[in-house]
Amino acid sequence: MKISALAHEAGLPVATVKYYLREGLLPAGEATSATQARYDDRHLHRLRVIRALVEVAGLPLARAKQVLAAVDEPGPDPYAAVARAVEALPPYAEPADPACPRATALLEQHGLDVGVGSTALTQLEVALRGLEAAGRPLDPEAAGRYLADIRSMAEREVASVGRDPGASLPGVVEDVVLGTTLIEPVILAMRRVMHQALYRERTERSRPGHEADTLSP
Amino acid sequence: MKISALAHEAGLPVATVKYYLREGLLPAGEATSATQARYDDRHLHRLRVIRALVEVAGLPLARAKQVLAAVDEPGPDPYAAVARAVEALPPYAEPADPACPRATALLEQHGLDVGVGSTALTQLEVALRGLEAAGRPLDPEAAGRYLADIRSMAEREVASVGRDPGASLPGVVEDVVLGTTLIEPVILAMRRVMHQALYRERTERSRPGHEADTLSP
Repeated sequence: MKISALAHEAGLPVATVKYYLREGLLPAGEATSATQARYDDRHLHRLRVIRALVEVAGLPLARAKQVLAAVDEPGPDPYAAVARAVEALPPYAEPADPACPRATALLEQHGLDVGVGSTALTQLEVALRGLEAAGRPLDPEAAGRYLADIRSMAEREVASVGRDPGASLPGVVEDVVLGTTLIEPVILAMRRVMHQALYRERTERSRPGHEADTLSP
Repeated sequence: MKISALAHEAGLPVATVKYYLREGLLPAGEATSATQARYDDRHLHRLRVIRALVEVAGLPLARAKQVLAAVDEPGPDPYAAVARAVEALPPYAEPADPACPRATALLEQHGLDVGVGSTALTQLEVALRGLEAAGRPLDPEAAGRYLADIRSMAEREVASVGRDPGASLPGVVEDVVLGTTLIEPVILAMRRVMHQALYRERTERSRPGHEADTLSP
């Protein structure tokens, strides 16, 4: 298809598609003349990934490039490729203490190992420090319960990645990146919605006359 | 204590404390002379809440004021006060369709009700649309499993709010706001950390020679 059809299919202005081409996020199409090129479904797919990163996750273009480089050239080690891609995702947290003592202690206590230099570990450290600074440190028991709920979620997610035996490594890296970045807002919104629904139930139950309403005819 | 001691205790520059006073986020101290005032632990506590909202959650000052107004003047309906405070928290999403059809259908399917005009419902709608736009819609079964894990988390959280029989309504609103805003980055970081730990385990297991390593002496 021509660039105009590609842009239409992707729901983007042609100028935006050209911009992504110039910036190297979208690979060039197959030249059909000096000024025209043909694009296919792989380009459309790539545009959807770019939109997810730039418009939904709000990545700066340089970070989006870093993610796409890990997708396109994953290298021999799948774990390293996935880690490189996920590390380019926000939030971009700087730990006050690079040893991440709170996060490291918590993971050790639960037999989890993420290796050194993990961005996720830094994010966890910063988040735990934030609670401490507000005078509400997370006690080890509560942290363990959060980890258990999140483990249930993460085990399903990790098991589903690359389950297709024909899945290429770039496909796996892309899966993980989009799974991380697009599911995060779903999880947070579901938690707030669930809070509202549960408070609502509780408020209804505690309203005077509620029992009378339901018990008497 | 004097303003200098208050600032020191809160880990903030005096100028920042004065700024929060001028903006009305921090209530005035008890005047001890024409130019001096005395502050107490309630001011220190409030400064910790302000920091959590402004520095950790990144709220614009106007939104932080909205949260604190709901804390200070909750009104007669606890549910409404909590909802008002939580709605001032980011992300500030605009739905393409105010009816939020995807989110509403999902909640109905699971017997959950958040009422009309819920910001959390809008956030869920925008998040679900983001997945669709990337060509990866969340299927109802997967959504149900996420909801189940999140319900487990949210039930504990809602049960813990206001458990103290002496808890005032402002204290409850503050609890919910800080619980929402400070725990969100913890949940996301834990999920990424868990992914890394699980991928690591899987990669180790699938490495050639792994079985030989562990089985032979």
